[in-house]
Amino acid sequence: MDYNKLALEMHEKHKGKIAISPKVEVKTRDDLSTAYTPGVAEPCRKIRDNKEDVYRYTAKGNLVAVVSDGTAVLGLGDIGPEAAMPVMEGKALLFKEFADIDAFPICLDTKDTEEIIETVKRIAPVFGGINLEDISAPRCFEIERRLKEELDIPVFHDDQHGTAIVVAAGLINALKCVGKTMEEADIVINGAGSAGISICRLLLQFGVGNIVLVDQKGALCPGEEWMNDAQKEMAEKTNKNRQTGPLSEIIKGKDVFIGVSAPNIVTAEMVSEMADNAVIFAMANPTPEIMPDEAKKGGAKVVATGRSDFPNQINNVLVFPGIFRGALDARAGQITENMKIAAAKAIAGIISDEELNEEYIIPGAFDERVCDAVARAVAEESRK
Amino acid sequence: MDYNKLALEMHEKHKGKIAISPKVEVKTRDDLSTAYTPGVAEPCRKIRDNKEDVYRYTAKGNLVAVVSDGTAVLGLGDIGPEAAMPVMEGKALLFKEFADIDAFPICLDTKDTEEIIETVKRIAPVFGGINLEDISAPRCFEIERRLKEELDIPVFHDDQHGTAIVVAAGLINALKCVGKTMEEADIVINGAGSAGISICRLLLQFGVGNIVLVDQKGALCPGEEWMNDAQKEMAEKTNKNRQTGPLSEIIKGKDVFIGVSAPNIVTAEMVSEMADNAVIFAMANPTPEIMPDEAKKGGAKVVATGRSDFPNQINNVLVFPGIFRGALDARAGQITENMKIAAAKAIAGIISDEELNEEYIIPGAFDERVCDAVARAVAEESRK
Repeated sequence: MDYNKLALEMHEKHKGKIAISPKVEVKTRDDLSTAYTPGVAEPCRKIRDNKEDVYRYTAKGNLVAVVSDGTAVLGLGDIGPEAAMPVMEGKALLFKEFADIDAFPICLDTKDTEEIIETVKRIAPVFGGINLEDISAPRCFEIERRLKEELDIPVFHDDQHGTAIVVAAGLINALKCVGKTMEEADIVINGAGSAGISICRLLLQFGVGNIVLVDQKGALCPGEEWMNDAQKEMAEKTNKNRQTGPLSEIIKGKDVFIGVSAPNIVTAEMVSEMADNAVIFAMANPTPEIMPDEAKKGGAKVVATGRSDFPNQINNVLVFPGIFRGALDARAGQITENMKIAAAKAIAGIISDEELNEEYIIPGAFDERVCDAVARAVAEESRK
Repeated sequence: MDYNKLALEMHEKHKGKIAISPKVEVKTRDDLSTAYTPGVAEPCRKIRDNKEDVYRYTAKGNLVAVVSDGTAVLGLGDIGPEAAMPVMEGKALLFKEFADIDAFPICLDTKDTEEIIETVKRIAPVFGGINLEDISAPRCFEIERRLKEELDIPVFHDDQHGTAIVVAAGLINALKCVGKTMEEADIVINGAGSAGISICRLLLQFGVGNIVLVDQKGALCPGEEWMNDAQKEMAEKTNKNRQTGPLSEIIKGKDVFIGVSAPNIVTAEMVSEMADNAVIFAMANPTPEIMPDEAKKGGAKVVATGRSDFPNQINNVLVFPGIFRGALDARAGQITENMKIAAAKAIAGIISDEELNEEYIIPGAFDERVCDAVARAVAEESRK
């Protein structure tokens, strides 16, 4: 299918993908007097007297802002706020379809970290949550950290944490498939940008045995000169054996390869040098670090990609709808590490031990059980 | 009817009044690949290469931000951004119901003029127009002026211009009813805040004979010490006979009284001292400057109020849906004075000479002809 052509036609025909819809009718004078003046003054007064009532009388509690500055959109890079709009509308569409959340695109005409933070804070009264999207590193770290500190509604950078959670979910089941445990797993993550670092952070929470992060210049290891601040911090927490060198060296003997990097950089031969029953998550998009058949040739037991045309698709859509549904339902002030862990376990738990096999470690994108399970687990964790 | 009670129940039951709705379905992998990755990258690329294409492939061209800082909400005053939300959602609801425009509430957590201006500018990429709402004077003047200058999409402060346009529409027909012309009309406007000044400005464009603006301290007249900058400017342009003194003096002999002030400040006796066949627009809400029966006792020929339970309701809902519909349809960069005049004439023109009478000078809020007529007139004027 030529999705580019289909997408252009569809976007032009409908002029985008989202609209505003009324929850109540305004067909009579009485309707007008109830939904607008004079009646509307009464919920206004209630909220003026008790700010929490904004959740009771307005749409806030189900509204999520999908915030981007258009600097890291898909594989397209810094294309600006207008050109980011189709993606942010698409995200809003998915929020609605998968979790009945009312999400609205906020594409910002600034790339300045402080300006982004203050703008989101100023528009926050309308929203029950903030989903940060396609903001380039390292600004995305600071923006998320500060907004989490300074706002009392959940803030979630999906590119980091959505990916991390679905990878963790897949890894729980992949390791089960090959009869290994998190504690003994020796993992290499290739790509030490925001996604790779976030995956690493979450896997550390699961008590993984060893992780080595590798970037274009080699393994992250204390003492390496080329690392940025986030990488230096990770180097201290990972790489127990203080390995240095390129991916082709680091991958040797590893149980798991996780790629959030570039197409075709792993060969069947490299896979053959990994531990037995290797697990490969090759998530570069649209062309993975290694194609599934090549990975299998090298002896991999479980292979997952970001693509829908192979088994085991690692797709954020399994995460963000349920995470926000649960956080909004519980009126969580934050999305905590424990909530992320609960989400990953809930996704993995959808697949029973009987169903589990190397071609089915992660539910499909349209599995209707996923959002509910994630939302319940996240809300329960939040209420603890 | 107890609209306060009805409003509370309705707002709580539905959790506000607006939701996001999808324009396209996402039920299959193909849907996902068209509305989201990988297909969505193609409209992104088109817009990156030609920014104008944002109107072609996204919802921008039909999206209006309803922006408030919550400082001048209904009669409630400065109640804050959260408490303003029911009104802004209500406005969004009316935009949708009356003009099929997708409007979204933006309630800002700042009252600083510069901060409001820069915040609206930063979120502007998403929107095809900006409706400013319930922002207190005099900040609302500067905010609108600057945003009009600095943005290339229409910016409209409805409290000022919506009211002015519907008053002008009503006045066209009211004067026709009493056999007077705009050029000979001698008018007093009571209330020299943002609404009164805006009404005055627009009526001057219609070539009205004489206008005197009156505030709590008396008539606006060059040399008066108590006037603010906006009032000083208006004093120079009005009050041909340089009248000074209170409303009770100024109203004598006037053809038209327009009130955007306070309840019950005009008496039947004061009306009796106006010119024959006086026209009264008493728009204080919910209690007018004088009740219609009292005004009639004083000899008024035509009486209009802001209320739906009397004839001749002066209601902004006749204006803003059509103004924005027309501006968006024509992709107008601004809403000009001529577009406002065209809108007022279009509203007045809905009522034929045969239908016109002193109890029917303005179409009803639900007259379906109005939005279309205003939109057509505004779009046509914009294309000139």
